[in-house]
Amino acid sequence: MSVKGGSSVIKSSLIDPDGGALVDLVVPESERVSKKAEAELMPKVRLSKVDLEWVHIISEGWANPLRGFMREDEYLQSLHFNCLKLKDGTIVNMSLPIVLAIDDKDKEAIGSAPDVGLIGPNGDLVSILRSVQIYKHNKEERIARTWGTTAPGLPYVEEVITPAGNWLIGGDLEVLEPIKYNDGLDHYRLSPRELRKEFDKRQADAVFAFQLRNPVHNGHALLMNDTRKRLLEMGYKNPILLLHPLGGFVKADDVPLDVRMEQHSKVLEDGVLDPETTIVAIFPSPMHYAGPTEVQWHAKARINAGANFYIVGRDPAGMGHPTEKRDLYDPDHGKKVLSMAPGLEKLNILPFKVAAYDTQEKKMAFFDPSRAKDFLFISGTKMRTYARTGENPPDGFMCPGGWNVLVKYYESLQSEETSQQPAVLST
Amino acid sequence: MSVKGGSSVIKSSLIDPDGGALVDLVVPESERVSKKAEAELMPKVRLSKVDLEWVHIISEGWANPLRGFMREDEYLQSLHFNCLKLKDGTIVNMSLPIVLAIDDKDKEAIGSAPDVGLIGPNGDLVSILRSVQIYKHNKEERIARTWGTTAPGLPYVEEVITPAGNWLIGGDLEVLEPIKYNDGLDHYRLSPRELRKEFDKRQADAVFAFQLRNPVHNGHALLMNDTRKRLLEMGYKNPILLLHPLGGFVKADDVPLDVRMEQHSKVLEDGVLDPETTIVAIFPSPMHYAGPTEVQWHAKARINAGANFYIVGRDPAGMGHPTEKRDLYDPDHGKKVLSMAPGLEKLNILPFKVAAYDTQEKKMAFFDPSRAKDFLFISGTKMRTYARTGENPPDGFMCPGGWNVLVKYYESLQSEETSQQPAVLST
Repeated sequence: MSVKGGSSVIKSSLIDPDGGALVDLVVPESERVSKKAEAELMPKVRLSKVDLEWVHIISEGWANPLRGFMREDEYLQSLHFNCLKLKDGTIVNMSLPIVLAIDDKDKEAIGSAPDVGLIGPNGDLVSILRSVQIYKHNKEERIARTWGTTAPGLPYVEEVITPAGNWLIGGDLEVLEPIKYNDGLDHYRLSPRELRKEFDKRQADAVFAFQLRNPVHNGHALLMNDTRKRLLEMGYKNPILLLHPLGGFVKADDVPLDVRMEQHSKVLEDGVLDPETTIVAIFPSPMHYAGPTEVQWHAKARINAGANFYIVGRDPAGMGHPTEKRDLYDPDHGKKVLSMAPGLEKLNILPFKVAAYDTQEKKMAFFDPSRAKDFLFISGTKMRTYARTGENPPDGFMCPGGWNVLVKYYESLQSEETSQQPAVLST
Repeated sequence: MSVKGGSSVIKSSLIDPDGGALVDLVVPESERVSKKAEAELMPKVRLSKVDLEWVHIISEGWANPLRGFMREDEYLQSLHFNCLKLKDGTIVNMSLPIVLAIDDKDKEAIGSAPDVGLIGPNGDLVSILRSVQIYKHNKEERIARTWGTTAPGLPYVEEVITPAGNWLIGGDLEVLEPIKYNDGLDHYRLSPRELRKEFDKRQADAVFAFQLRNPVHNGHALLMNDTRKRLLEMGYKNPILLLHPLGGFVKADDVPLDVRMEQHSKVLEDGVLDPETTIVAIFPSPMHYAGPTEVQWHAKARINAGANFYIVGRDPAGMGHPTEKRDLYDPDHGKKVLSMAPGLEKLNILPFKVAAYDTQEKKMAFFDPSRAKDFLFISGTKMRTYARTGENPPDGFMCPGGWNVLVKYYESLQSEETSQQPAVLST
């Protein structure tokens, strides 16, 4: 809706976005041995990779004020109202159900036990779930209300929901150790608390967040640099950009996290974004591709991490309809829904200008409708096609260092595919 | 959630449930001729029977503070949040999208005209729609988010949404004359304003509403009489029952409105409910069968009409899943969602006890789990089977006068079916 100025808004937002302290659900080191011993005796539930991403998310306070996987009251509020009402009457945005599914056998094994041990995908005991509540997992209803469709082919549904059990188990998490991935990228995984410290250290008086799950091209960079300029014009002295790629589950044809992180590094090395005023960190959430419902989650989590400006574009968290030839969501609905979402009133939404390749100026520029024919729109699909076929995109589309990362990735992918499935072309 | 007592709550609720006056969108008589002449010159949209029911609903303030069919901002809030935020920050419950669909031809004919004339199903000009906004009607998303399923066979979807156009048109209503049906039942169609007057006239200090779309059996009556007793015990001096059958669109196998009204009259005549403390009126809304989403609408509309206690039962506004052998909704979700719904905080929800036929006492009684085998549950389907086959239900299930109305109706239906389709048995 609006760009709300004034540094008073910002300061209160940096300190305390939700009227409560950030949760940290990781057990203190001194208690780990005893808690582990206690957990060993509990009935166990095995987590999938995505379940573990949610444990990570909840444990660090991104989903504040959630203390664990949703119980039924929270689940129903999330599903029907996209927000939770706290005991004191405060409305908190909570648009995605953050739930843990179990099957009949798990349910039987748990019986009436109050607490459950959660086992990570590699067999380690990662957390206790306290005071559990088990309730029905009506997948059809969850999918319909979250995505606004039940068409087959939604990536998160196929990967996470369809194979999951018919029960949900809610409870409070006590995470036994900080969640680590040991993939060489853990130093990018700053918690909301760590991000806030970093903003303080840099003496940010405004933090603007940019959510992405794609390589950064010069159109993105133009937008981010322009946003910084506008914030300076609004009177902020030190706006800091949180370049915040999503690090959890993404669909198979998205560029993998390690490649994206390397590409983002090059963009900073090449000076397209200013390292002095940019923090690059990983947002550990899995991706739902649930459009207007999910964009609220993306914004809410960043507020919890101390951001107070959020850049929202065309069709955020959207994708093509899985069975029809159209966008799944109206491209304007994400922005509209976000601007009206209960519990996100403090958020300053920054309208996203459309950037495209200006064939006259030979660079990415804000689209000028008066000379529309000079502009070339390069979609993600088009970009991937360039990289895959080894064709160079137009000069000025992306910094050369960043582009090379992508070319290398698609080359490796093709040689892999060729060696595995010689007769099949990648799509 | 809770039964909130205290007469202070009630008085404020009777006067002003939403912090604003009830709307009345019917044009004063003195202006009708000139408004009609003005409307004649506008582009026209033809209303279906159900569209007209919504014009009726909106015009009398049941959907307060809506002044007309939803524009896109209201539609999106309803769909995603089940509530609207007013300019002053007030949250108002609004769980069903109240929208008017038009097709491509209508859209073209309207062009950029600001105002549109609405034509009733019988060809009369019924209303002006002012300052219209036309936006896309994504039926799949609307259905998924409203019903939590897109399975074929949802009655409102098949009757109203599927045949409708691919655009929605919002705007402010100026209704040219009060909506009348001329079916001999208009005297039962009291507006929220008229109901409030009636409650005042009877000096009600509590009004408890009972929503139904089925004949009243002695189990319902037991519940209503018991509620009155409990309200008296809570200290209210004159609780009034609003027996409020739904009068708009219902699915084909529900008992028609005229038969239900006759049946309800007999129940009062036979003294099963006390006419002194009961007001029977028709709620002119169409039925969605959208369970937890719709029960909020049912409650909200009755608050607007001055009720402050709402009786909610098992699976309110629910039905069987259209393609699977199960209830479409969890039978407890309606009550739970209602108790947490934003904008309905003032509502006092009365838990619904389960009544069944006590074969020992030979009457409807509250179910006693300690002697479960003595109780007979008579479903709507079972009741219809009794009436259709001419078999009498157990003594004490329904007053004889009311029962005869049903028997007569099913007899007339069978002779009709026999004469029309001699080889087909009704189901």
